[in-house]
Amino acid sequence: MRASFGVVLLLASVLIGKVSAGDGPQYTADGKLVRPVNYREWIFLSSGSGMTYGPAAEAVRDGNPPFDNVFVNPSAYRSFLASGTWPDQTIFMLEVRASQSKGSINNGGRFQTNVIAIEAEVKDEKFPGKWAFFAFGKSGADAKMIPATADCYSCHKQNGAVDNTFVQFYPTLIEIAKQKGTFKRTAE
Amino acid sequence: MRASFGVVLLLASVLIGKVSAGDGPQYTADGKLVRPVNYREWIFLSSGSGMTYGPAAEAVRDGNPPFDNVFVNPSAYRSFLASGTWPDQTIFMLEVRASQSKGSINNGGRFQTNVIAIEAEVKDEKFPGKWAFFAFGKSGADAKMIPATADCYSCHKQNGAVDNTFVQFYPTLIEIAKQKGTFKRTAE
Repeated sequence: MRASFGVVLLLASVLIGKVSAGDGPQYTADGKLVRPVNYREWIFLSSGSGMTYGPAAEAVRDGNPPFDNVFVNPSAYRSFLASGTWPDQTIFMLEVRASQSKGSINNGGRFQTNVIAIEAEVKDEKFPGKWAFFAFGKSGADAKMIPATADCYSCHKQNGAVDNTFVQFYPTLIEIAKQKGTFKRTAE
Repeated sequence: MRASFGVVLLLASVLIGKVSAGDGPQYTADGKLVRPVNYREWIFLSSGSGMTYGPAAEAVRDGNPPFDNVFVNPSAYRSFLASGTWPDQTIFMLEVRASQSKGSINNGGRFQTNVIAIEAEVKDEKFPGKWAFFAFGKSGADAKMIPATADCYSCHKQNGAVDNTFVQFYPTLIEIAKQKGTFKRTAE
């Protein structure tokens, strides 16, 4: 049996490509962001307790501080490790979850329970300010872009340590950004 | 230029293998567990605030509740999605981090800072009870097995919802285990 070098290389590149790429933003025909189904398998950057961002601010009112988990798509993460900043087609997913204290063997502190809200921040050259925000609610399959006049845009731009993002709250990325010279010192 | 089919297939399989496998436990010649260098790129299961496990219990004493981040190796996670339980060669990594409240724009709630302790729970048929625990301290490159008489062994065995693990605290895995019939109801 014989096969050409070109055919086999094509097969190899398709298989490898399937593993390493395809994690950029996908949009519906009318410009909504499609919620990435597997964002929980992306790179975890950090979580906070009782910290809130924009539309999820209502969540703390019941006295149970929510957790916010932040994930980024793997291809953007690899690029950040090399450059200290975010490439085009970066997606941050913010997952806000309710918390609980008493449950199973836990008698102190808090653990995570149900999803309260899911939001995204996307870097895409097609947006005038390059970055755009989207709110999926608890489980929306897609989301319209939040208007660029919303507070999240100005707050991220003014206070994000690296290129519109809160790297100051992502402990494994802080030193990388500082070494690469991309960390805005005034954000600390 | 010519290359044989076999050589190119070998190249392809090496490249693909590098991405998809090799995330099981590695041991030193004297049986210590080697700390996985890239566990922060594994699958994030959840984080808690002020929850402690075994040797990290001292961490809460300073009044700042630590966060505990739990990661599992990707191959074990894929197996869990299919079966509702953990295969041989599963590794859980528990990363305990200090917390801070005032910092940057944050004025309420808490965010994560430095590592306090790193621990592992490994499933390996070579251990008498199949599961074993290891404590790396803040940054140890390898760790001796914690003796099987330690509390962590009995507590996980008695109280873990699925096969020695606290799936009751991992919100995305609870329903999977219940659907597969592997969830111990008394653990809730």
